[in-house]
Amino acid sequence: MQIRVINPNTTAAMTAKIGRAAQAVAAPGTQIVAVNPASGPVSIESHFDEAVSAIGVADEVRRGEAEGADGYVIACFGDPGLLAARELARGPVVGIAEAAFHMATMIATHFSVVTTLGRTCVIAEHLLHAYGFERHCRRVRAAEIPVLDLEDPASGAYTRIVEECLRARDEDGVGAIVLGCGGMADLASAIGRDIGIPVVEGVTAAVKLAESLVALKLGTSKHGDLALPLPKPFTGMFAHYSA
Amino acid sequence: MQIRVINPNTTAAMTAKIGRAAQAVAAPGTQIVAVNPASGPVSIESHFDEAVSAIGVADEVRRGEAEGADGYVIACFGDPGLLAARELARGPVVGIAEAAFHMATMIATHFSVVTTLGRTCVIAEHLLHAYGFERHCRRVRAAEIPVLDLEDPASGAYTRIVEECLRARDEDGVGAIVLGCGGMADLASAIGRDIGIPVVEGVTAAVKLAESLVALKLGTSKHGDLALPLPKPFTGMFAHYSA
Amino acid sequence: MQIRVINPNTTAAMTAKIGRAAQAVAAPGTQIVAVNPASGPVSIESHFDEAVSAIGVADEVRRGEAEGADGYVIACFGDPGLLAARELARGPVVGIAEAAFHMATMIATHFSVVTTLGRTCVIAEHLLHAYGFERHCRRVRAAEIPVLDLEDPASGAYTRIVEECLRARDEDGVGAIVLGCGGMADLASAIGRDIGIPVVEGVTAAVKLAESLVALKLGTSKHGDLALPLPKPFTGMFAHYSA
Amino acid sequence: MQIRVINPNTTAAMTAKIGRAAQAVAAPGTQIVAVNPASGPVSIESHFDEAVSAIGVADEVRRGEAEGADGYVIACFGDPGLLAARELARGPVVGIAEAAFHMATMIATHFSVVTTLGRTCVIAEHLLHAYGFERHCRRVRAAEIPVLDLEDPASGAYTRIVEECLRARDEDGVGAIVLGCGGMADLASAIGRDIGIPVVEGVTAAVKLAESLVALKLGTSKHGDLALPLPKPFTGMFAHYSA
Amino acid sequence: MQIRVINPNTTAAMTAKIGRAAQAVAAPGTQIVAVNPASGPVSIESHFDEAVSAIGVADEVRRGEAEGADGYVIACFGDPGLLAARELARGPVVGIAEAAFHMATMIATHFSVVTTLGRTCVIAEHLLHAYGFERHCRRVRAAEIPVLDLEDPASGAYTRIVEECLRARDEDGVGAIVLGCGGMADLASAIGRDIGIPVVEGVTAAVKLAESLVALKLGTSKHGDLALPLPKPFTGMFAHYSA
Amino acid sequence: MQIRVINPNTTAAMTAKIGRAAQAVAAPGTQIVAVNPASGPVSIESHFDEAVSAIGVADEVRRGEAEGADGYVIACFGDPGLLAARELARGPVVGIAEAAFHMATMIATHFSVVTTLGRTCVIAEHLLHAYGFERHCRRVRAAEIPVLDLEDPASGAYTRIVEECLRARDEDGVGAIVLGCGGMADLASAIGRDIGIPVVEGVTAAVKLAESLVALKLGTSKHGDLALPLPKPFTGMFAHYSA
Repeated sequence: MQIRVINPNTTAAMTAKIGRAAQAVAAPGTQIVAVNPASGPVSIESHFDEAVSAIGVADEVRRGEAEGADGYVIACFGDPGLLAARELARGPVVGIAEAAFHMATMIATHFSVVTTLGRTCVIAEHLLHAYGFERHCRRVRAAEIPVLDLEDPASGAYTRIVEECLRARDEDGVGAIVLGCGGMADLASAIGRDIGIPVVEGVTAAVKLAESLVALKLGTSKHGDLALPLPKPFTGMFAHYSA
Repeated sequence: MQIRVINPNTTAAMTAKIGRAAQAVAAPGTQIVAVNPASGPVSIESHFDEAVSAIGVADEVRRGEAEGADGYVIACFGDPGLLAARELARGPVVGIAEAAFHMATMIATHFSVVTTLGRTCVIAEHLLHAYGFERHCRRVRAAEIPVLDLEDPASGAYTRIVEECLRARDEDGVGAIVLGCGGMADLASAIGRDIGIPVVEGVTAAVKLAESLVALKLGTSKHGDLALPLPKPFTGMFAHYSA
Repeated sequence: MQIRVINPNTTAAMTAKIGRAAQAVAAPGTQIVAVNPASGPVSIESHFDEAVSAIGVADEVRRGEAEGADGYVIACFGDPGLLAARELARGPVVGIAEAAFHMATMIATHFSVVTTLGRTCVIAEHLLHAYGFERHCRRVRAAEIPVLDLEDPASGAYTRIVEECLRARDEDGVGAIVLGCGGMADLASAIGRDIGIPVVEGVTAAVKLAESLVALKLGTSKHGDLALPLPKPFTGMFAHYSA
Repeated sequence: MQIRVINPNTTAAMTAKIGRAAQAVAAPGTQIVAVNPASGPVSIESHFDEAVSAIGVADEVRRGEAEGADGYVIACFGDPGLLAARELARGPVVGIAEAAFHMATMIATHFSVVTTLGRTCVIAEHLLHAYGFERHCRRVRAAEIPVLDLEDPASGAYTRIVEECLRARDEDGVGAIVLGCGGMADLASAIGRDIGIPVVEGVTAAVKLAESLVALKLGTSKHGDLALPLPKPFTGMFAHYSA
Repeated sequence: MQIRVINPNTTAAMTAKIGRAAQAVAAPGTQIVAVNPASGPVSIESHFDEAVSAIGVADEVRRGEAEGADGYVIACFGDPGLLAARELARGPVVGIAEAAFHMATMIATHFSVVTTLGRTCVIAEHLLHAYGFERHCRRVRAAEIPVLDLEDPASGAYTRIVEECLRARDEDGVGAIVLGCGGMADLASAIGRDIGIPVVEGVTAAVKLAESLVALKLGTSKHGDLALPLPKPFTGMFAHYSA
Repeated sequence: MQIRVINPNTTAAMTAKIGRAAQAVAAPGTQIVAVNPASGPVSIESHFDEAVSAIGVADEVRRGEAEGADGYVIACFGDPGLLAARELARGPVVGIAEAAFHMATMIATHFSVVTTLGRTCVIAEHLLHAYGFERHCRRVRAAEIPVLDLEDPASGAYTRIVEECLRARDEDGVGAIVLGCGGMADLASAIGRDIGIPVVEGVTAAVKLAESLVALKLGTSKHGDLALPLPKPFTGMFAHYSA
């Protein structure tokens, strides 16, 4: 089975890291294809970055459909372009935020999220609400680190994340932590050891969910609002979407 | 005051119609600038169409900032790219779906929405929930007409919309109808006469709200998650967004 | 167009101040008629004060209907008698609490309310919930000042309000502040300058919303539960309501 | 113990009927004092009627405090003036709508409400939501009878109510019916026999709840927003409230 | 009337204490039968303890049906086995958590819960949500005392509970406290005196509610999901349930 | 990896069927141990049956802990004893209702549930709400078949289920169906073929989720309310739980 893991930003080093984390938990028969769009922001830290990255996600799903992907992971914690991607895909599409939330609710009655910049907390809060997990999450916390600091071992990002996780554990009354950025995919087990409670990471969670859905022969429903988009003309830089 | 009314699709005839409807309700001192992006779908009838159109909306807001726009209207009922647009704008940005919902709650305790295709009902339902109007809306109904049929007087679209509005009035226990498509901007008063209860149309509602916010000197808050996006590199077809 | 701005309490100085604030934002063609009932409490700081003031609001709407008012503003932050007023009016009726909430959601993803006495916070909380804005408001805060202290420059009220607004800005993670009392109508711009984030004030917001609804020819729906009350006998001090 | 049962409308025959129903379920040591205000509407069928009747309710609570009432029942299904009444009372105050809802949830997982006129359904819906019972109630139904028809045996009201109750039983998936009008206080047991499932009536339910609270020595909390209203001047026809 | 008050744990001293508290508030004609199951945990402080105790509750209801009980109280704050008990009973069944919540909402707009161990707070939170009281409760607090410390005057439990109640009163903005354990049934009036705001205790509240329902002739609805369980074979240690 | 699939009822034929369905989707390295308790009801069709079956579930988890189970599935659609099981287990525990809900939300924006008897619909509704999926599920429908009819090919159960699924597909506006009974584990693919939209079945979904959690090294959090139960004495038939 081929799972296309899409890093919606254009930083190749992050794509590689995400790919390694995905491969590490993949089943023997699973081929992980880690990609990022050619066009888009180098990191996603705002509503605008998200909106732009949704195009890249859609493009990568279109490419995946052509190349025989069985399922998809959207590896940015805002799940950008999720519903659009589902329309375009026949197999399942799983966002890493939803994946982490689903998994966390099965091992703890409540969790907190620890993400990067404070200005992105509202994105996670909106997703929690849209998905129905707002009562399971006690709090969305920011370690106040730029996303790309996660690529720089000298940035001190790891320490700040662990400190925020400890505050969540001790102040929020939660049994688990959800890491709120695809760029933290390599940190989950170390953080788990350091804080002593389960840490749920979205990339790895989403890979297992995508594998599971494919194994269950459950693709995206093509009945109703997730059916393939109606073919129609597009103009300008999007003219290639015309059909 | 200059209000930039952005039709997120690329059908110029619809842009013109929307512009006329906007101008018809604008205050004497208000200049309506009706535009549509150069790039994007000719109509918006899916999550994918929406995601693509969000780029065009962002582009038009960027252009508006350069050209001195005081406020913005996003004239598609899915409010595509609304939060991204707010990040980019200093003045207020108003979506036509939210505008219609706000106005409807002030003249009736409950309303129903009548939109175009059934597959887009879920978009309106998601917005109702995200905005907090889910308890004010009894039902989202589709007249099952493609958006571009609204541009064709021979399509019978008007009759089907009125029939659905009458069903909403008689079956849903509502005091008002919200029209669920920017392409219906010219129909509100005729429908209101035909069905005998208030009909709220989003383009006109949004123009008045944008004017009101500008008059109150209330621009988009630049404190917190709607602050201007952090400058950063973009790649590929979006490289021009780099800063 | 004539907008009747009803101060539900009976303090004429506050009525005048509210009228000035309303006039300052009104469109050129708008006539502001600022009134207060002859009967009622001098300030509204409890559920009981609210219940009594609803009679005065209804009386002023009845008077407005006779005098040709095109729309109404209820200028107390509890929106007392709002649904009763809507039944009595043909034009739109807008409460200042709802007006401020509507406007605030269009310029910030979250806001906090700063009101007068702690015991009235629950009134604002109930309204937030009834209107569907409970997820947009982070917190309702009280500056712990009696309403009539707002009429006395020596009371120190302004300073206490600003201090509470600063706490809201710095602790609540919000992009805007809603002022929670009609008596603060003259303070919004000064507070906005002092705290550096948008401040939404209800009287001015409601005037623009009422003007907008009138401009859109959207009166209160007379179909359903907001239709004119059934004529019937009233007794005693309310016998004049009989019909 | 003295329970003051306040019929908020001014129809003495209905007050007497409500008093008889209250007395029929009262404990041996309970004195039922059934009253109605001197001033107000003869029936309550609109938001306006409700607002006016809240004054009468407050007046009767003030009178009750002077006459030694231990607890209060507000015998109109809109619970008019409930929070104002609680501020004025030292003992408990129970509305018949909330009373019926509380009781119904203890004998069935879901109930439906059958009330009088369709235009008042929204009042019950608002209460269900304000109280937190919106998930226990499947539907609010109207038998479409004017309130005062309940006083006229020849009106056919009883038959129409039973028919609507049967529809609720057979279509709504509920285990119990809540009768939605104080004027139905004498009908509950007959309807129960006719439809074969439990019927909860608010006047009788509220009397038992008020008795229970008094027996438990639980009066209205005077700490916080239900403390006695702050003394202050009132003007005009309400000048007698001044203190 | 006979009310069977079931202590779901097997500590006879606690059963006796609960029985005394129940009797102290019972009406003259009410016979309180305080019982506990022969089988089960000595205290209930976990989801597992709760699940086991539900069997004892069911057994005691079956016994009560045979012995002519008119109504039931489940005297553990998790309301264990409540819906199962309702299926088995013809009369009403009232849990002490729901009873306390119902009563608290009638005397205060908001309350906080003070319970025993922190790990059981989530049980109360789940109930608040299932019953619809989540908006009335500000916070569930734990005094961090094991349940059986309530049986030991030397444990210091009383002091710790009062301290937590004072924190709730001063920090949570509530008008009343709900005690969150059946073992606190003897403490309510003393705590009320010490903290100066109303204290609602579940055992006494539930007795009055059960009496009230019986007086109103409202038994558990046998129409729908609370009808008597379908007779069927049971195996092993539950074979005696077969029918 | 060893996954213990617990059929909470005591019908061995159903256990075998569930085991076969589980094995059919299990990964190569997964050992499915399908068991049912020695004690309990032969089918689960009421709140009482559920409460009793929770004991059997807990017993099987205790046995699994002794025998080295890595994860658990509770194979009854009411997820009986789920939180108690989680307290007892170190590995993950997944209920088939939650599993099916999680999976369904990732392939469709809305789903409907088709279950056995109408009286059990409320159990599914309560779970949807407790888990946060109430906005994703349009309707819970019953085919009105007793659970054990699923074991009898001559019962006509399959036809009735398909008919109800078709009604859900055509009337509810959903993209997927969730089958609401562990006894339907063998029917999902046939129904999917017959109705043409995705059908999510809980046993198979839960097996994949349990495998995924084990693969991710995510066991039940032992920090907080799901920590191992406090050791304490139990009496009577539960004395063996003492510690």
